[in-house]
Amino acid sequence: MDTIIKIAAQAKQASRGLANLSARVKNDALLSMAKALEEATGQIMEENKKDLIYAKEKGLPAVLIDRLALNEKRVMAMAAGLMDVVAIPDPVGEVTSMWRRPNGLQIGRVRVPLGVIGIIYESRPNVTADTAGLCLKSGNAVILRGGKEAINSNKIIADILGKAATAAGIPQNSISFIENTDRQAVRELVKLHNLVDVIILRGGKSLLEAVGTESSVPIISHGEGNCHVFVDKDADLSMAARIVFNAKVQRPGVCNAAESLLVHRDIAMKFLPNMINQLKEAGVEIRGCFETKRITPDILDATEDDWSKEYLDLILSIKIVDSLDEAINHINRYGSSHSEAIVTSSYANSRRFLQEVDAAAVYVNASTRFTDGGEFGLGAEMGISTQKLHARGPMGLVELTTLKFIIFGDGQIRE
Amino acid sequence: MDTIIKIAAQAKQASRGLANLSARVKNDALLSMAKALEEATGQIMEENKKDLIYAKEKGLPAVLIDRLALNEKRVMAMAAGLMDVVAIPDPVGEVTSMWRRPNGLQIGRVRVPLGVIGIIYESRPNVTADTAGLCLKSGNAVILRGGKEAINSNKIIADILGKAATAAGIPQNSISFIENTDRQAVRELVKLHNLVDVIILRGGKSLLEAVGTESSVPIISHGEGNCHVFVDKDADLSMAARIVFNAKVQRPGVCNAAESLLVHRDIAMKFLPNMINQLKEAGVEIRGCFETKRITPDILDATEDDWSKEYLDLILSIKIVDSLDEAINHINRYGSSHSEAIVTSSYANSRRFLQEVDAAAVYVNASTRFTDGGEFGLGAEMGISTQKLHARGPMGLVELTTLKFIIFGDGQIRE
Repeated sequence: MDTIIKIAAQAKQASRGLANLSARVKNDALLSMAKALEEATGQIMEENKKDLIYAKEKGLPAVLIDRLALNEKRVMAMAAGLMDVVAIPDPVGEVTSMWRRPNGLQIGRVRVPLGVIGIIYESRPNVTADTAGLCLKSGNAVILRGGKEAINSNKIIADILGKAATAAGIPQNSISFIENTDRQAVRELVKLHNLVDVIILRGGKSLLEAVGTESSVPIISHGEGNCHVFVDKDADLSMAARIVFNAKVQRPGVCNAAESLLVHRDIAMKFLPNMINQLKEAGVEIRGCFETKRITPDILDATEDDWSKEYLDLILSIKIVDSLDEAINHINRYGSSHSEAIVTSSYANSRRFLQEVDAAAVYVNASTRFTDGGEFGLGAEMGISTQKLHARGPMGLVELTTLKFIIFGDGQIRE
Repeated sequence: MDTIIKIAAQAKQASRGLANLSARVKNDALLSMAKALEEATGQIMEENKKDLIYAKEKGLPAVLIDRLALNEKRVMAMAAGLMDVVAIPDPVGEVTSMWRRPNGLQIGRVRVPLGVIGIIYESRPNVTADTAGLCLKSGNAVILRGGKEAINSNKIIADILGKAATAAGIPQNSISFIENTDRQAVRELVKLHNLVDVIILRGGKSLLEAVGTESSVPIISHGEGNCHVFVDKDADLSMAARIVFNAKVQRPGVCNAAESLLVHRDIAMKFLPNMINQLKEAGVEIRGCFETKRITPDILDATEDDWSKEYLDLILSIKIVDSLDEAINHINRYGSSHSEAIVTSSYANSRRFLQEVDAAAVYVNASTRFTDGGEFGLGAEMGISTQKLHARGPMGLVELTTLKFIIFGDGQIRE
């Protein structure tokens, strides 16, 4: 096994060549990589079996084992994902603006790759292929560090993709994989700020807490989503019910699902009984504030802790509020700045909610579940950033680039 | 003295109101702040005297004492700086793009303030006023933490600005100042990631090394500038001489001054003797590679260490290279990714240099000394970032903002 520093140094070297490749070369490589995955389906499934055996021995929950499992269809989907990346425009080389100064200097800003991207993830094996494809298309070298549970699957996928890329003319070591699943390996990686340009953390809170403060490499973290839907007093209540139900129930285990419902006092009595019944029928556990319980007593008590919780499960907290102000203050206090929605027919309230709620994505009259690179039309997604610096919300290819100033002169010197 | 966490919590509170202020209110406040500074000139100079006495007692070099000293003209210049910020367009509220999805969702991105900006600096007292003005105009609360040497000057300036801002209708605590000059105070500040959105580090390498790895708040650092000028084989040699001289001599103590000269072998004999004479006459110490010494023996030897050094002084290292490739590789290896220039008349070489050199600002036929917010036409500057994430190169007001997704629906739910 190569040392972490050797892997990073080789990736840095690769990134120099990668930055200058044309979109055509990168697209051809992506197609080769997709084909290589398809052809290796059997081999990938064999390696995946090892992970599944380990998972069962370890007694992982069935839902996690299902996420881990690869079959022919899932490998095909990974390959199709790589082919989708071909269709996304190459952001590298775009001159976003250019202007002329009084002294005749012409100054512009051009998009360039970040360089070397380290990605630490705990998700399904398809993240390995998705990430490798997106980094390659944006001209970045990538160092992949997946979770222990999927180590065999991730390793074979990264290996196949790396070989196919090199065969297609991409610099060697453009796609690297860290086999060492100890947290120590991550600790080493995040200290190599001379070799690694950014670390993307796609994992739980514990990963961020363990790595975040030790890192000398800038981090983009994918934090939690404690998302709210606020039903305003003049909302279309049937629209509100559809949105709340969708935001909570359609896929409760993801970060853009709603965890908390705020309801304006004036319509609470009319709206809540049916809404709560509908949610309960879908298996949702309701935890309500004191006033919610007065309306529908047959629910659990929401505690102070509930307001900050990301359940990632069929659980919803409900609070009745007196005003738009109280709703906004509650969201800004307890929310995680991910996705927040208001349902209203008020022009003024929609404007204030959009302006005053501090989150990556703020919705009027739509489900929070749309916060996603594909749904937003970004073409792909490297995850969803809940921080404000560099990238906020779903990250597409553009967020994997930075801007460089280019200056055209004809002998100008500074007086 | 308030505790650091209290200062940060109050700043966070202030940032909520600040984010929603109109440009008119902010501009009026900036004018009041400028007026308040002018009116307090005597008071400011008295406090400044205390810093000067301390500096002399401590035996600081005359050049640093001069930087620290305030007189009527310098206070007026600070006030004028605040008035200049009035003229810069308010970036907050700009919708940078908006599109419609097939399901009818209208999705846009709007510029919003970062929130709370902590700035740690070791520079002259005018940074206090400049930073307060730029943060206010971009709708951010600022926590100022200046160096020990200027503590009395910084404190009175921050105090006057804060009071004037509040009197003009800006939320209280929008401009805060940390009086504690122990590094411990900085250590506390950089751990408050729930309250502080970004830390801007304007200080030496030691500050970055001390704080960088401890911080849980994202950092934008202003690293060093080891800048090069490469004189290509078909350069206009008189243009090259003017640019090299300007880049090295015009103001050697700043980060965009050149520290190293690369010369193509084919013109070294013709170019270097005169160039070196001219530089020596201006008091520049020359440290040359083996081949440079063969041409002009009366210079010092450049060691391997010299190639990575930011002298910030009248010293220049010189290396003769065989090709554009060698120049680019040398710069990418030893440079600090700040400002890099080529002097050439070759179209192809200018294109390759612009594309392949990895730096915040890459120049053709102009002095590196132009890397500056004002010179680039950004209207103002919060410093120059040498990192790639979020902001690279001179930071203007736009770099003090982030983008929020806003989504207009009419009942859309995710299938």
